[in-house]
Amino acid sequence: MKKFAVILNGCGQLDGSEIHEAVLTLLAIDKKDCLYTIFAPNVPQYQVINHLTREPMDETRNMLVEAARIARGDIHDIEEYNPADFDALVLPGGNGTAKNLFTYAIDGVNAKVLDSVRKAIVETHNLHKPIGALCIAPVLLAKVLGNITVTVGMHVGTIKDVEKMGAAHVNTQQTEVIADKQNMIFTTPCYMLPATISDIAESADNLIETILDNI
Amino acid sequence: MKKFAVILNGCGQLDGSEIHEAVLTLLAIDKKDCLYTIFAPNVPQYQVINHLTREPMDETRNMLVEAARIARGDIHDIEEYNPADFDALVLPGGNGTAKNLFTYAIDGVNAKVLDSVRKAIVETHNLHKPIGALCIAPVLLAKVLGNITVTVGMHVGTIKDVEKMGAAHVNTQQTEVIADKQNMIFTTPCYMLPATISDIAESADNLIETILDNI
Repeated sequence: MKKFAVILNGCGQLDGSEIHEAVLTLLAIDKKDCLYTIFAPNVPQYQVINHLTREPMDETRNMLVEAARIARGDIHDIEEYNPADFDALVLPGGNGTAKNLFTYAIDGVNAKVLDSVRKAIVETHNLHKPIGALCIAPVLLAKVLGNITVTVGMHVGTIKDVEKMGAAHVNTQQTEVIADKQNMIFTTPCYMLPATISDIAESADNLIETILDNI
Repeated sequence: MKKFAVILNGCGQLDGSEIHEAVLTLLAIDKKDCLYTIFAPNVPQYQVINHLTREPMDETRNMLVEAARIARGDIHDIEEYNPADFDALVLPGGNGTAKNLFTYAIDGVNAKVLDSVRKAIVETHNLHKPIGALCIAPVLLAKVLGNITVTVGMHVGTIKDVEKMGAAHVNTQQTEVIADKQNMIFTTPCYMLPATISDIAESADNLIETILDNI
């Protein structure tokens, strides 16, 4: 049974992990009779947003505690992540991911990356193990690893930023996966393009299947 | 295209809607090329629970605002629900559902039901439209409607309570659906039994398919 690590960062597209992408990644892994272990940074979220009004709320929430909602409590501090224990690493997206795991939503190409997240990505990459990323998370891989090939769909501004980070970009339609086999990087656009929830399920299935084909 | 209404109540198994059941119900509806509209009560949750430690937190959260995380903001106050606009109603579960939509987790068979939720269930039932319920939510239907047939899996204590509420119970294995066609009530146990996330996806698919077969 192949073992996947999944990194989340809260619970909700605007200030944490996108819930559909997170749940459907777990489902895609489980459907392939593989195991998943969920991690998140044990630090405060960048912000809390009311998902009804889209306005910030005067609250503080913790990425690990909120991501535990998606994980049904079965979750670990990202500091415990050891790539030697896993066959692959996957990062779902969400606007919150671009505020919490790195600051792309605020700082653009000059985004700062959370140390624990950079360490997880670099150490996995150094072991030449596959890393999958959905939605905006491919930008995080571009920021950390530089010279890789990814997709974020067809969003011109984001594509330019990815290229400034030193990565190559391939345009994709919904549910397509770009496999950079040399670097073991696998990406799919999900909610970076207009999408139904079935599109997200199909994208997650395609991503996990492509990763498994390359392990 | 058949139209489903889905009632949520926050975001997280311990104090709101169970996230996997909620997301996979939406996916099951969308996969059948049907439409979903999500509703939740615009009132405070019974409590907020830290899903990592399972301890209560000294916070207040609103069922509609938190459920908007699962709905990506596309959600309505349950007061706006009109069963005439829909072909079916579905209620995912979660421990939170048994605290928020009715107080079964606190008051057992003497549970109080939120007025807006009782109205939604009774009016849908009076139009003889199908109502689906997952996990603990069948107990809510038993409490409101009394003389119906449901399943909550095989949990003896809960089964006794359901029977005290005037309903009949049928034991089920994971992913099975009990169809009370006379009353148009469709139920499946989900996380009331040991389950993988794939089991929840299959249960939701079976539930939506059974409802569509009976519309």
